[in-house]
Amino acid sequence: MISKAEIKRIRALHDKKQRQQCGVFLVEGEKMVAEALASGFEVEAVYRTEDIGQEAMERISQLSSPSPALAVVRMPEVPDAGEIASLIASRPLCLALDCVRDPGNLGTIVRIADWFGIDAIFASQDTVEIFNPKAVQATMGAIFRRKVIYCDLPAVAERFTAAGMPVYGTFLDGKDIYREDLCSSGLIVMGSESNGIGREMAAKVTSRLYIPPYPRENSGSESLNVAIATAITCALFRR
Amino acid sequence: MISKAEIKRIRALHDKKQRQQCGVFLVEGEKMVAEALASGFEVEAVYRTEDIGQEAMERISQLSSPSPALAVVRMPEVPDAGEIASLIASRPLCLALDCVRDPGNLGTIVRIADWFGIDAIFASQDTVEIFNPKAVQATMGAIFRRKVIYCDLPAVAERFTAAGMPVYGTFLDGKDIYREDLCSSGLIVMGSESNGIGREMAAKVTSRLYIPPYPRENSGSESLNVAIATAITCALFRR
Repeated sequence: MISKAEIKRIRALHDKKQRQQCGVFLVEGEKMVAEALASGFEVEAVYRTEDIGQEAMERISQLSSPSPALAVVRMPEVPDAGEIASLIASRPLCLALDCVRDPGNLGTIVRIADWFGIDAIFASQDTVEIFNPKAVQATMGAIFRRKVIYCDLPAVAERFTAAGMPVYGTFLDGKDIYREDLCSSGLIVMGSESNGIGREMAAKVTSRLYIPPYPRENSGSESLNVAIATAITCALFRR
Repeated sequence: MISKAEIKRIRALHDKKQRQQCGVFLVEGEKMVAEALASGFEVEAVYRTEDIGQEAMERISQLSSPSPALAVVRMPEVPDAGEIASLIASRPLCLALDCVRDPGNLGTIVRIADWFGIDAIFASQDTVEIFNPKAVQATMGAIFRRKVIYCDLPAVAERFTAAGMPVYGTFLDGKDIYREDLCSSGLIVMGSESNGIGREMAAKVTSRLYIPPYPRENSGSESLNVAIATAITCALFRR
């Protein structure tokens, strides 16, 4: 059973403001809920269709066809300045997302970062919320293993540079990524779907890269999707 | 202006059966319509909100927020057996999609194939239709430059093998893709989102590859999305 008040409270979490205010988010699907329970995340409640009925599940679900399980999960703590400082001191390989707007792309990028052992994902304040239902879904569970740290992105880039690490970014006039020496530590900046890396972050990039098309004079294609470019870049850093 | 009969005819094209029967599909968005007009594809009609009005556009559009332009475009001709034979004789690098179900993934794969100059994309009959609106959209125009050829996939794989070319596929027990010699011609098989490469196609693969996670003993991640795996594989073949 589920009370009307509970239904109302969960439905409110479909809204970003409410999620942020309550510090919890929704996870849907048997597999995702199982991953939440097995993770270090605090799971506040789990609802199953077999217990609450199809109608109630349809009301609390964010999906057009609800899955049999939904969990309310507490958001992880945001690393403080000291933790970010020691992370950077450990000479990590990190991603910096400059205004990634599409939740599916963001979730996919977190999944890629998880596969390729990227130590942290920094994101500009105007990047879409990782607790957006489509983003959560697209992580396929990686959200329980990798944090997205919303922050002042140019300031983070400066700290990598100050620590003697490169700041990478992909640009049309960058150097062939296949031929460059790629460090095992540094910051890799990825830009927005429509405009690429913004001017302020572009100024912080110390190593401009380019994923060349094939053949080089390939005239048709204009670009790669940001998640696709992230995947190729991470794979080449980790080869 | 647009007549009621025209609206009805276009709305019918939201349905796959109708599209296949009429041999036309819909293209939406200013940029995509411009690409259709600039391509070799036969554009039967273009509708603009400024001409037909917002209400009519909402009725003919497949999008929840309609764009200002929609085109009805004739499907390209399917290559016949002779054309496929000469394609294979040219020792191309091709993709083979074994039951890719998600239209967004299919469209993204066509965009990747366009970027990396993949000569043709073969697809199993149970792969989602490339003229599905979400697939068309995800190609970002690459649909006008790369064909998806629905066919008997195992038979195509056999023809690559008979012509002395490798048939690649990614498997959990495959060899490290970073260390393998990757040919400039051959067939690269990609499997479905949920089950990977099916048994029948797996038996046709002559070179089993694996995109290793980082670090190798990375225990969290289970898999990469099929479009992401396609991107990394194509990038490594074309580096």
